[in-house]
Amino acid sequence: MSHATQSRFHGVIPPVVTPRTADGAVDTASLEKLTKHLLDGGVSGLFVLGSSAEVPYLTNDERDLVIRTIAGVNAGEVPILAGAAEQTTPRVIEEGRRLIGLGADAIVATSQFYAISDAAETEIHFRALHAAFDVPLFAYDVPVRTHFKLPLHLLVRLAQDGVLAGVKDSSGDDVGFRQLLLATRDVPDFAVFTGHEVVVDGALLGGAHGVVPGLGNVDPAGYAALYNAAQSGDFAEAARMQDRLASLFNIVYAPTPGRVSPGAGGLGAFKTALMLLGVIDTNVMSAPMVQLNEAETAAIRTVLESNGLL
Amino acid sequence: MSHATQSRFHGVIPPVVTPRTADGAVDTASLEKLTKHLLDGGVSGLFVLGSSAEVPYLTNDERDLVIRTIAGVNAGEVPILAGAAEQTTPRVIEEGRRLIGLGADAIVATSQFYAISDAAETEIHFRALHAAFDVPLFAYDVPVRTHFKLPLHLLVRLAQDGVLAGVKDSSGDDVGFRQLLLATRDVPDFAVFTGHEVVVDGALLGGAHGVVPGLGNVDPAGYAALYNAAQSGDFAEAARMQDRLASLFNIVYAPTPGRVSPGAGGLGAFKTALMLLGVIDTNVMSAPMVQLNEAETAAIRTVLESNGLL
Amino acid sequence: MSHATQSRFHGVIPPVVTPRTADGAVDTASLEKLTKHLLDGGVSGLFVLGSSAEVPYLTNDERDLVIRTIAGVNAGEVPILAGAAEQTTPRVIEEGRRLIGLGADAIVATSQFYAISDAAETEIHFRALHAAFDVPLFAYDVPVRTHFKLPLHLLVRLAQDGVLAGVKDSSGDDVGFRQLLLATRDVPDFAVFTGHEVVVDGALLGGAHGVVPGLGNVDPAGYAALYNAAQSGDFAEAARMQDRLASLFNIVYAPTPGRVSPGAGGLGAFKTALMLLGVIDTNVMSAPMVQLNEAETAAIRTVLESNGLL
Amino acid sequence: MSHATQSRFHGVIPPVVTPRTADGAVDTASLEKLTKHLLDGGVSGLFVLGSSAEVPYLTNDERDLVIRTIAGVNAGEVPILAGAAEQTTPRVIEEGRRLIGLGADAIVATSQFYAISDAAETEIHFRALHAAFDVPLFAYDVPVRTHFKLPLHLLVRLAQDGVLAGVKDSSGDDVGFRQLLLATRDVPDFAVFTGHEVVVDGALLGGAHGVVPGLGNVDPAGYAALYNAAQSGDFAEAARMQDRLASLFNIVYAPTPGRVSPGAGGLGAFKTALMLLGVIDTNVMSAPMVQLNEAETAAIRTVLESNGLL
Repeated sequence: MSHATQSRFHGVIPPVVTPRTADGAVDTASLEKLTKHLLDGGVSGLFVLGSSAEVPYLTNDERDLVIRTIAGVNAGEVPILAGAAEQTTPRVIEEGRRLIGLGADAIVATSQFYAISDAAETEIHFRALHAAFDVPLFAYDVPVRTHFKLPLHLLVRLAQDGVLAGVKDSSGDDVGFRQLLLATRDVPDFAVFTGHEVVVDGALLGGAHGVVPGLGNVDPAGYAALYNAAQSGDFAEAARMQDRLASLFNIVYAPTPGRVSPGAGGLGAFKTALMLLGVIDTNVMSAPMVQLNEAETAAIRTVLESNGLL
Repeated sequence: MSHATQSRFHGVIPPVVTPRTADGAVDTASLEKLTKHLLDGGVSGLFVLGSSAEVPYLTNDERDLVIRTIAGVNAGEVPILAGAAEQTTPRVIEEGRRLIGLGADAIVATSQFYAISDAAETEIHFRALHAAFDVPLFAYDVPVRTHFKLPLHLLVRLAQDGVLAGVKDSSGDDVGFRQLLLATRDVPDFAVFTGHEVVVDGALLGGAHGVVPGLGNVDPAGYAALYNAAQSGDFAEAARMQDRLASLFNIVYAPTPGRVSPGAGGLGAFKTALMLLGVIDTNVMSAPMVQLNEAETAAIRTVLESNGLL
Repeated sequence: MSHATQSRFHGVIPPVVTPRTADGAVDTASLEKLTKHLLDGGVSGLFVLGSSAEVPYLTNDERDLVIRTIAGVNAGEVPILAGAAEQTTPRVIEEGRRLIGLGADAIVATSQFYAISDAAETEIHFRALHAAFDVPLFAYDVPVRTHFKLPLHLLVRLAQDGVLAGVKDSSGDDVGFRQLLLATRDVPDFAVFTGHEVVVDGALLGGAHGVVPGLGNVDPAGYAALYNAAQSGDFAEAARMQDRLASLFNIVYAPTPGRVSPGAGGLGAFKTALMLLGVIDTNVMSAPMVQLNEAETAAIRTVLESNGLL
Repeated sequence: MSHATQSRFHGVIPPVVTPRTADGAVDTASLEKLTKHLLDGGVSGLFVLGSSAEVPYLTNDERDLVIRTIAGVNAGEVPILAGAAEQTTPRVIEEGRRLIGLGADAIVATSQFYAISDAAETEIHFRALHAAFDVPLFAYDVPVRTHFKLPLHLLVRLAQDGVLAGVKDSSGDDVGFRQLLLATRDVPDFAVFTGHEVVVDGALLGGAHGVVPGLGNVDPAGYAALYNAAQSGDFAEAARMQDRLASLFNIVYAPTPGRVSPGAGGLGAFKTALMLLGVIDTNVMSAPMVQLNEAETAAIRTVLESNGLL
């Protein structure tokens, strides 16, 4: 229920995972199949080199290969938002410019990390990124990785000043999310996405413009249908669809804590599901993350079956 | 959209604030007026001795006076849920039994604090509380105070075993909140409340049974109307009402950070609004919290006026 | 190497643990034996109702019984510092006054907890406590429990203004500890204690006035000897003694994480060691904490033997 | 008081700051002067591309220029330890190999960051780094940046297995530091350094092998003298020297919080002091960090004067 003009960046924009071959290389054939699977599912954008892509683990050469492969299949069909996952302003600028050259229609950047920064320096950071790029800039609010929550008032100011074209919120702070929606509802073309798979109905009810669901790799059509139900105002139907997708999301509890790291678990579940669905060839993870094993794979198969995907 | 039988604990259950006189004593006359204001506003329960009551700052004598005063006005009209705010199992048991003797229809307890505990010990804690009380037990999930998030799987197990009658969630974790709703939807009489004022529409869309809004002290009728709209399935209307209440919630930004502590700010805003509305006599806070000053009070008056309450 | 006059509060001041009988009651006979064990070991003060006493788990009646029992045995031999473990200013004042009436020569208080406070409010808190008590006030800096580190500049100001008579530091921040020592070295009678068992030699080298070691329950004479070596300037000898005590400290690794909570583990190890040494009768913990089992007890016996205590 | 053979990596190993010219480029002339200043001060190693070098803010080209410049001046006089500041195993390997090619005698690496990892994955990480490098590997424990404290038992195991040649500890956990020293004292050639400027005397008393002090850029001779006093067993003298250096360390409080970020403040103070001492030309910081202003510079000048450096 945004009151401003609609951004070209909206709807279901899944963060594309990075398939690997059995020997650990980026599997471009599987990545091409996955990209088609997403476009066929009715997504309205592609988020490349996000956390779900295992971007922290990719070398720069691999990052380039990934965006080139996806951009090649997409061929301009939907907008490509690319994550520039680097530590500080100068390094994000270098990274972002390279990705723009390889097909990014927008750059998504976090606050600085590994650095010890603060709100004032973060404002300088985003203003410098905006000045350096000739495509729209989205802020990615992911304190579980950066250990810094982007302050509401900073985001609102950067929205109003045209520095940010939007925010991808993975902060887990639904109160701040709603307040951001309210405070920016009159900013033209400003788009706010939730990154949380199981609260999309409520986010859309509150006025969100889209969703970046890791689980959308597995069931892009399910998320597209949920988005469309909400757009048509049928929120009871959207809630039913959300409940089904929340049940499917239980695949992320298959990996064994301790054996598989928190970072590897959710992504490993998405890749394992995609392997079981025949979309990608393996569930191999980027080193040093551990691949899900047979028991964990069987648990995921059960969830897929009980939700009608297998 | 809960599928199980409805708990008698549901709907709008505001956490009643504690008015004080100019010299710092508990103001029972104002507290009586406030209780009537809430009942007249159509609330379906009263949460006494919660965080909004400044319960950490009340001596035991004051706690007793507060619950006795509210119970006297309520006279059994709606259920009274009482917070037993103590550090550990033995002390919560002592506290809870005293409050039951003074009129509590249910006890609300957090995990242990100041103690250095873990999930296993927390399970023992809640099972011991359940065994010690002859009224329903609710878990209060408030990691911003306890610094421990109640684990989803623990809450589900305690729900299924009949240890918990419900959860009041102030965790800010909307993902876990939705997963708790899904996992307990078939548990009879189990009730899940959100404590977050600005995301009630989404919480109800996801199946929540009620809300415990501090802001509900100021506008109980507004929250009752929102709850009723959602109950009737009109979520678009619920979202509009929520947006208005989210705008009203901006009173919490009136206090000056640094001058007023985070804990004192939001509560001070609620009390100041109630004073401006003529419901209570002063906006005096429990020591050592600082009272909002004239400039902050003026800012709150402006928000109340722009939202039609003054 | 303090340059100001020596406080009467200095040296080894162990935080006395709370023995329980097999049926869970406070075991006053064992507590009397333990108090004598500590006085015989050469301690120069007793810290009662600290974290090591399981104070968060004690009811008020039990707290009173504990301080009365210890004060009875001590009979004025060494100063008694008592922890007033309560949530906020008004409740700490009530608690502290009661303990002073029961024999406390000084009150030790943390910043507020469960409350959501800040530095400015914490300053009001300590000033109000100082005004309310007619005995010296020590600040207890224990962010692992309060989740708030007492700011260096606040402590220095409160020291210079005579509000605080000292600080018991369990913050784990050795940099701040040294800076506090330097900044207060000219404040008469101001005493800074470390609560960390294995870095006492370095703390004393830096000018600390004493130590509050949980492990001092087990080996009070060992800590007294370490303190005396440092006082005489023989730091190489102090370091050797510290290394031995650090080896003994390995008893805290005997409890199994997951089975025993972090809070119960270290204290359970101290109590189990005291039981094996014949000082107290059982290693029963306050509910809901779990008692160490046979295997864990055997591991502790091995450490005691390899360090010559058994 | 290490009992094992002495590592070639020991003593005072300052983390070399990165001077910049007025227009923001790396100032190689100043960097050469600074390197000579450190070698003349009697340091026994150089830590390049550490946090004090502003390494998160340096592009790869700048990182290469910095290590080449320092290695050129050093010409093999003391060992060069180089920080490979990257997000994950594959990226640290790529970074580390490049730095070895440019003159690093050892690689210093943190646990993964921006990634969401755990202890088991961190063990795989360090073992993979060790296998990939043909020079010694040091772990850099800096949870204020990585938000992950390296577990004691993991460090001990990696030490005993020859994976790690040492640890640079900036964890602020002096208890864990002492326990690491005790647990590794019989591991040949294993070296433990503290990164904390004001507790070096206590660290050396406990058996530490060296120190990596940012403040050592400003006063390398002061740290060398402190190290030598401790080596000769004169800890009282070491403590006096430490107290003087702790007083000098107060320059880090000159920057205004809010105006200057926490990360920029301490480093800005070191660079400003070096500028005032005539060692480097400017106190320009890497973007987006803010340069200290005139008032802050004046405050630093006062501290330098009162400590006899100006």
